[in-house]
Amino acid sequence: MKAAALLAGLLMAVAAAAQTPPSPAELLAASPAGDWREVPAEQLLRLQLPAGPVWIELAPEFAPYHAANLLKLVQAGWFDGLSINRVQDNYVVQWGDPAAGSATARPYPEGVLKLISAELRRSARGLAFTALPDPDSYAAEVGHSAQGLPMARESDTGMAWLAHCYGMVGAGRDEGPDSGNAAELYVVIGHAPRHLDRNVTLLGRVLEGMERLSSLPRGSGALGFYEQPLQRVPVVTLSRALDLKPEQRVRFQVLRPGSPTWSAWTEARRHRRES
Amino acid sequence: MKAAALLAGLLMAVAAAAQTPPSPAELLAASPAGDWREVPAEQLLRLQLPAGPVWIELAPEFAPYHAANLLKLVQAGWFDGLSINRVQDNYVVQWGDPAAGSATARPYPEGVLKLISAELRRSARGLAFTALPDPDSYAAEVGHSAQGLPMARESDTGMAWLAHCYGMVGAGRDEGPDSGNAAELYVVIGHAPRHLDRNVTLLGRVLEGMERLSSLPRGSGALGFYEQPLQRVPVVTLSRALDLKPEQRVRFQVLRPGSPTWSAWTEARRHRRES
Repeated sequence: MKAAALLAGLLMAVAAAAQTPPSPAELLAASPAGDWREVPAEQLLRLQLPAGPVWIELAPEFAPYHAANLLKLVQAGWFDGLSINRVQDNYVVQWGDPAAGSATARPYPEGVLKLISAELRRSARGLAFTALPDPDSYAAEVGHSAQGLPMARESDTGMAWLAHCYGMVGAGRDEGPDSGNAAELYVVIGHAPRHLDRNVTLLGRVLEGMERLSSLPRGSGALGFYEQPLQRVPVVTLSRALDLKPEQRVRFQVLRPGSPTWSAWTEARRHRRES
Repeated sequence: MKAAALLAGLLMAVAAAAQTPPSPAELLAASPAGDWREVPAEQLLRLQLPAGPVWIELAPEFAPYHAANLLKLVQAGWFDGLSINRVQDNYVVQWGDPAAGSATARPYPEGVLKLISAELRRSARGLAFTALPDPDSYAAEVGHSAQGLPMARESDTGMAWLAHCYGMVGAGRDEGPDSGNAAELYVVIGHAPRHLDRNVTLLGRVLEGMERLSSLPRGSGALGFYEQPLQRVPVVTLSRALDLKPEQRVRFQVLRPGSPTWSAWTEARRHRRES
């Protein structure tokens, strides 16, 4: 690990001397193991679509009650056989029970909460935060949490919250802020809808398979809902990685915010050469 | 027209009194004809894909040489039968000649320039600009041009330029800034890649059919290029609206920046009620 760190350092030094900074891909290839965090299997979900899997990591640091409720739904297989019902261009993909709210709605398993108070912000105290130097139109400070999630912080109030960036997973709700329970989920597939920050609960993000959501046919109904039931995209299963067969499991590692590779990588992305 | 304007004003007044501001859709429904601009047919292009049309309006105010070269290519039918070769998730869709730069490249018609100086900015003098009140991380002032195109302005230098927002159309190029000629085109399909502003020439924007580009399968090669020729999406035709048969033509109207409906609509979007 030390040798790898040394190699990464050397690579940057050599590149600096040659006036050609290493590319983001070169930095990742040379990164030491210690710059990476293993995603815990108990927070890792697999959304199985007909086209393949989408892997999601939960964010219990920010939405503990929503994450816990979602895990109960997932462990009970509650989402299996439901569907993606809404794909709104430059906005969100959303899945859940298309019959929600009607007489034929799928009942919740024992122990699942029907409504959870929105988890829109929390105290920033004790929360790791790797700041970005860039200005932001929506928050005083922006950067990343320990998990590498896009995060905003405000010293006036001492509060922190997750930001609605591409690939973030949220809990759909009705009009009231406390009207969701993580049985209806959405993923951001367009320009970051930051006006939703502190307005709707975010509870995780997509790690892999994002293109299986972003390339889905758009719905032609209001808010991008599919107008015909047959247009809906089946949710084959939504499972915890822990509950998958060993051969179906995938391990993920995510770059640690603030690590040497992270710092060099974000800087390389800021001044990128590739088109 | 006067009666319609009066109606729109009344609607806003009634809504204000009732404490429920009109929705964006209600504002558009009540808008007077004078708040709309007709898109000139000579600046309107139809990109015909197997799934249907994508309509594009050129931006000759900002990229006159690129727009003129593109019109020559289009009038000669140069793009017909070429393909979309690149779809990079959360970034761009790009089309042109997959053999460009090789011995089998499609030759350019007479009068088409092979290289054009990049058109990255221009003088703001005499250029209509409807400012947005929102802060921006990339430019001193942001707002919209007379065409309703996303635009940035800088009083220090007196310059103006187009912004890489969702749906904007740009001219692909090689490493050098002056290495494009509008024979390779891209459209932004993800979070606005504003780092490309003043870096690559923008020459128009998609008016309709955006979802036919944004929902295309992503390419699995580097930069989102399709790895297999058969994965490429055919460009059936790229035509000027003027050259289409009368029954194929579509007329577009775009809201005039700064008009009463525009102002009320942007404000309604800023405080929107729908999810």
